[in-house]
Amino acid sequence: VGIRFADEEYEHRLELLRDALLEAGLDAAVLSDDRLTWYFTGFGSAAPIGSPARPRLLAATAAGENAFFVHRSTRATVEEMSAVRSIHTYDRLGSAPADDILEFLHRQGCRRVGLELDGQLRAGMTVADADDLRHGLTEVTDVSPLVWQLRMIKSGAELERIRTACRITDEVYRADLARLRRGMTEREIAARLERDMLERGAHGAWSWVVTGQAQYHRVDGVVRDRAVEEGELVFVDMGANVGGYWADFSRSAVVGRASPEQKRLQEHVADVTAIGVSELRPGRTTREAALAVEEAMAERELVFSSGAGRYGHGLGLWTTEPPDVWPTDETQIREGMVLTMEPATWTHEGMFHCEQNVVITEHGNELLSRTDWRLVETAQ
Amino acid sequence: VGIRFADEEYEHRLELLRDALLEAGLDAAVLSDDRLTWYFTGFGSAAPIGSPARPRLLAATAAGENAFFVHRSTRATVEEMSAVRSIHTYDRLGSAPADDILEFLHRQGCRRVGLELDGQLRAGMTVADADDLRHGLTEVTDVSPLVWQLRMIKSGAELERIRTACRITDEVYRADLARLRRGMTEREIAARLERDMLERGAHGAWSWVVTGQAQYHRVDGVVRDRAVEEGELVFVDMGANVGGYWADFSRSAVVGRASPEQKRLQEHVADVTAIGVSELRPGRTTREAALAVEEAMAERELVFSSGAGRYGHGLGLWTTEPPDVWPTDETQIREGMVLTMEPATWTHEGMFHCEQNVVITEHGNELLSRTDWRLVETAQ
Repeated sequence: VGIRFADEEYEHRLELLRDALLEAGLDAAVLSDDRLTWYFTGFGSAAPIGSPARPRLLAATAAGENAFFVHRSTRATVEEMSAVRSIHTYDRLGSAPADDILEFLHRQGCRRVGLELDGQLRAGMTVADADDLRHGLTEVTDVSPLVWQLRMIKSGAELERIRTACRITDEVYRADLARLRRGMTEREIAARLERDMLERGAHGAWSWVVTGQAQYHRVDGVVRDRAVEEGELVFVDMGANVGGYWADFSRSAVVGRASPEQKRLQEHVADVTAIGVSELRPGRTTREAALAVEEAMAERELVFSSGAGRYGHGLGLWTTEPPDVWPTDETQIREGMVLTMEPATWTHEGMFHCEQNVVITEHGNELLSRTDWRLVETAQ
Repeated sequence: VGIRFADEEYEHRLELLRDALLEAGLDAAVLSDDRLTWYFTGFGSAAPIGSPARPRLLAATAAGENAFFVHRSTRATVEEMSAVRSIHTYDRLGSAPADDILEFLHRQGCRRVGLELDGQLRAGMTVADADDLRHGLTEVTDVSPLVWQLRMIKSGAELERIRTACRITDEVYRADLARLRRGMTEREIAARLERDMLERGAHGAWSWVVTGQAQYHRVDGVVRDRAVEEGELVFVDMGANVGGYWADFSRSAVVGRASPEQKRLQEHVADVTAIGVSELRPGRTTREAALAVEEAMAERELVFSSGAGRYGHGLGLWTTEPPDVWPTDETQIREGMVLTMEPATWTHEGMFHCEQNVVITEHGNELLSRTDWRLVETAQ
């Protein structure tokens, strides 16, 4: 899999962006996050490694005029890769060419402009640059609802990458967890998972490993130099990146044999996850799926002890994207969305969490992670 | 090498931060970039992988009161890892707890507060969050001069990591470039370099490979699926990450034998680089080092054709950090800085660029990259 899609993919995205601007009553948007400019132009890498000294900014108007502002030194590569053909360069390192962008917008008669202000988006420019743009514009609003409306729905070409990412993740999980031994540290296990995903062709890899009993209420992907002991649960959350798109998958193993209580909790969490997954389909909202999860957890007297703030989320160029599967999020679930489902309960027995990745189909969904939910036991 | 430093390292950094706030006449700073909160608290990973839904914010006052604001779900890990003991949690995903932070700052009587507004810093919160903080504060200034003043000077413990990162990078370059063959693509070469750095213990790896003649004016780390041909220069820019700290190193090889012109250009660039390196010492400014490079290039009729916007830069938790080695940057070079030197000329013969990493010592500097500057030839 190469990194760049065919031109048609970007042309289609730019068309949808224009339609969305018109529908939102915006004259233009200015986008600067590396993933977002890559999404619309095709210029960039699987992982964002651009220097903060050379921000890349796409100005796109509702009239269909697009201009891509990049540092002069990147022009040759941008010309080769970008589907946006109007390329403007700047020389000064460290800040966005706000004056040039404003001049472009004013020349196009743009008054209402969307910027990356909220909705989990981080602007790829400094706050001072965003201030400069705002001072020069008549009206500025947050562009995030519009961005997520587009990015939430995956095309066939995007789905193909996510499928490959999920397959590599599945394969590496099964191969590596079978080799798990006591004494290995969280960091060692994670490093091996990541290397093996790259070895199988991933363009990037992410993993998180939690061992031991003091593991409840522990999130956010930080691994330690702690060695796993006999009988302990090893929780693995991991994902390959293929062409920019992530898998986000979790399963658990026990070093030695699982206790009856560990098996019981894992089965309950897998049941609740399956109930949640069955609610991820057109016609439902993320709120309704979340309420179904809550009911299923209550029936089993399971506590959502991770406190992660959501039972699932969108998946794509980021490992966590909107929408959130949570009672306060009322996103309509639609065909082409890729969502995760991961209700979890973390007790002194370990971390019970069995994350599924699904793509929403016309009438339901399709599971992308094929690995069984049962605890892997290293002593057979 | 583990990821976390000893407590004393963080205590020392927090002390220096307090001193810098006092000196700058600021009552407090609020920092939210994942690298920055990791730098001061010790909570985080070698690579930043926190979810954008759960920003982490450190509020530090000139009176020495520090408060770390994190999502509730991360509390257990933060308590285990953070050198800042006052931990405040929030529940809502997606935005920073601006009200709680303002309450803390007001309770501490803070009026003048520094935020990440400029100076290549990107705030780890949304622009809307930064606006909320600004609306609630009497006076807000950019905290970046203060942040870079601290981060530019590396401690002994930081230098140890950078040395290890440079050693791994050197070793992998030499091992892999010897195996270079025509027909390999830029992406394949880069993937192997990265895997091999991880295999040797790096916590992260970055690489960029450029082949062929259409390679001038091509920067920013984007690799292609282009195969290298006989006689072509293969330019490699790469670096291992050890405990959060990067190497940033470049050399070149030729598939087959180098032409006399390729050898001549590489020697000239290596000479200019060496002259630039000799100017990186206490008593000089980055401007003076840049002017020495320009003079040396002019003498050899070399054009700085990359247009990268600087001859070198700082190195640390980011692969490119302030200061810039450039005539407009007048930073005083001081002991403990880690800087790169990379004047380059890119012609139809290839990309001639021989990046060195150095640490500034009491009276001069020490080279961290030990690999010879000469072009590797795969046909011996």
